[in-house]
Amino acid sequence: MDYAITPPDQTIATELRHKIDRKTKPLGALGRLEPLALQIGLVQQTLTPELRQPHIVVFAGDHGAARAGVSAYPQDVTWQMVENFLAGGAAINVFSRQMGLGLTVVDAGVNHDFGKRTGLIDAKIAPGTANYIEEAAMSAEQRDAALQRGREIAHALADNGCNCVGFGEMGIGNTASASLLTHCLVGAERGADLYTVTGRGTGLDDAGLIHKRALLKQALERSDRPADPLAVLAEYGGFEIAMMAGAMLGAAERRMLVLIDGFIVTSALLVAHAIDPNVLPYCVFAHRSQEPGHRVQLDHLLAEPLMSLDLRLGEGTGAALAWPLVQAAVSFLNEMASFESAGVSDQG
Amino acid sequence: MDYAITPPDQTIATELRHKIDRKTKPLGALGRLEPLALQIGLVQQTLTPELRQPHIVVFAGDHGAARAGVSAYPQDVTWQMVENFLAGGAAINVFSRQMGLGLTVVDAGVNHDFGKRTGLIDAKIAPGTANYIEEAAMSAEQRDAALQRGREIAHALADNGCNCVGFGEMGIGNTASASLLTHCLVGAERGADLYTVTGRGTGLDDAGLIHKRALLKQALERSDRPADPLAVLAEYGGFEIAMMAGAMLGAAERRMLVLIDGFIVTSALLVAHAIDPNVLPYCVFAHRSQEPGHRVQLDHLLAEPLMSLDLRLGEGTGAALAWPLVQAAVSFLNEMASFESAGVSDQG
Repeated sequence: MDYAITPPDQTIATELRHKIDRKTKPLGALGRLEPLALQIGLVQQTLTPELRQPHIVVFAGDHGAARAGVSAYPQDVTWQMVENFLAGGAAINVFSRQMGLGLTVVDAGVNHDFGKRTGLIDAKIAPGTANYIEEAAMSAEQRDAALQRGREIAHALADNGCNCVGFGEMGIGNTASASLLTHCLVGAERGADLYTVTGRGTGLDDAGLIHKRALLKQALERSDRPADPLAVLAEYGGFEIAMMAGAMLGAAERRMLVLIDGFIVTSALLVAHAIDPNVLPYCVFAHRSQEPGHRVQLDHLLAEPLMSLDLRLGEGTGAALAWPLVQAAVSFLNEMASFESAGVSDQG
Repeated sequence: MDYAITPPDQTIATELRHKIDRKTKPLGALGRLEPLALQIGLVQQTLTPELRQPHIVVFAGDHGAARAGVSAYPQDVTWQMVENFLAGGAAINVFSRQMGLGLTVVDAGVNHDFGKRTGLIDAKIAPGTANYIEEAAMSAEQRDAALQRGREIAHALADNGCNCVGFGEMGIGNTASASLLTHCLVGAERGADLYTVTGRGTGLDDAGLIHKRALLKQALERSDRPADPLAVLAEYGGFEIAMMAGAMLGAAERRMLVLIDGFIVTSALLVAHAIDPNVLPYCVFAHRSQEPGHRVQLDHLLAEPLMSLDLRLGEGTGAALAWPLVQAAVSFLNEMASFESAGVSDQG
């Protein structure tokens, strides 16, 4: 599958920088908001960007390995939390409401029959992946279907007028999958040894963490390190991760701003980035998760997130919480007076 | 002047922690938002806090020392920026509008006659402080008047139904004043040597920074290190800083949540804290400024701000940008489902 992602044309950067620099503030005084405003201007190729119909999409999927003990929670929590999303009671519901963000939940492969439900896209590839400790998590056909479905979901959002999307996920066991993907895609030689990138997830105790690491080592020893990102994804991925990767690529194809959440969402970006590195200039990194492997992923992508709130919840909560900063970058660029317009003296 | 600040009663903390822990998320997974929710619950002494009529107050004042060359900008920028605030074109206007925050500007001592203006409180102590390089910045009477006026402004906000207030400032030369206050109140023995706590402010070059440090050294050598915070404030303070300190104490007296911005606002808090340390549990630290002395202040207060955006603009912009996180802490506490209410299985 080829993606049609064009990196943003840099021609407008000089004008954007000048506009930012002439605002009534010392040069650079808005810190991280200034490169963010520049990025958004580049993505939208305009000096007056607009954020239209911002949306969070939460991809949910189950993992065969969850039943082998890689998580502190039982697998049923995946579908129970999807029900919680649909009922409006989860953290991502609360934060999306507060921030004025649309919210859609995607069943990418939950081990549960939800029926037809408002706010839920049925994109189920299968009721959970196979147990990657024993065999490949998914077939090549399942992987390609998940990528394609994700891409279509992003395109549909764009068709509906949305130009900025944040991704989130729910899937008991999916930090384990993200650890394997990170290890394979970044490599131990770049700091992504399995030990470093495997953390406590939703809250394993010491014994649970040792067990999780042993299981993941077993999963890795089952096969050689796969040669390419698509093979890695089929071997150790989750349906929600594969579908997010496709959605990221699809969003970048449509020049949408993409808000990246924590460890699991960034593992999907590692896949997307390995498929087409041009996805990266469209991504805004919302927050630094408490999960230790996130640092390794961010270093690999040379990314510096906007916030460090020690979150480790997933669901896209970090993306939602960072949203006002994205708005602030756009609003200062559009609304602040310049030295000239306000009649303020410049540096002496 | 005595302040009637009662530290929050901790009795309700256990119930608050239990409520936070039973939300549908792994224990602690909302990171920094969880202690923030606890703090707000304690400040308001309730399991269901409410944020009412949130407000930013920007205190403006001029500094006699500004004309000696401690800033990269001419002194006139203070009143020009106040005009910019009143016209709605400054960064703090943009962010306050975006966040739904009320905004009031206080003339604590600007060297300009504004006349009677909507959105501006005339609390001018004098048209700028004296030049502290040569003499005390203000008299004891001026200092006490500024503290008292600030306290009254906070009380008036509370009387109008506001229960959370963020402070900002504008005053060419006021990072220099904040550096002197920080040095005197924290002490070189605790990392606040003059060299460390004196930074580039609005953007001095290397030569300007060397000059600023030399001037501040001269100001310090003029007298012995003052013995108490009120003496320090009169010697080196600004009217906007003194008035903010009074406003912080007044806000805490009325059990308001107080949002602390960057280096200059924190220097006012150092004064307030030295007068009555019970102000501290009412304070939320919004962001870590790029100004190097801010780290020293925060270490002294054992404070960890919510964000690090490399801001160095002042005006209360960091406080405004952190506001959605304060809202998020309250909204998750009030709106999220519990494991019980959502029928989600707890950790196995």
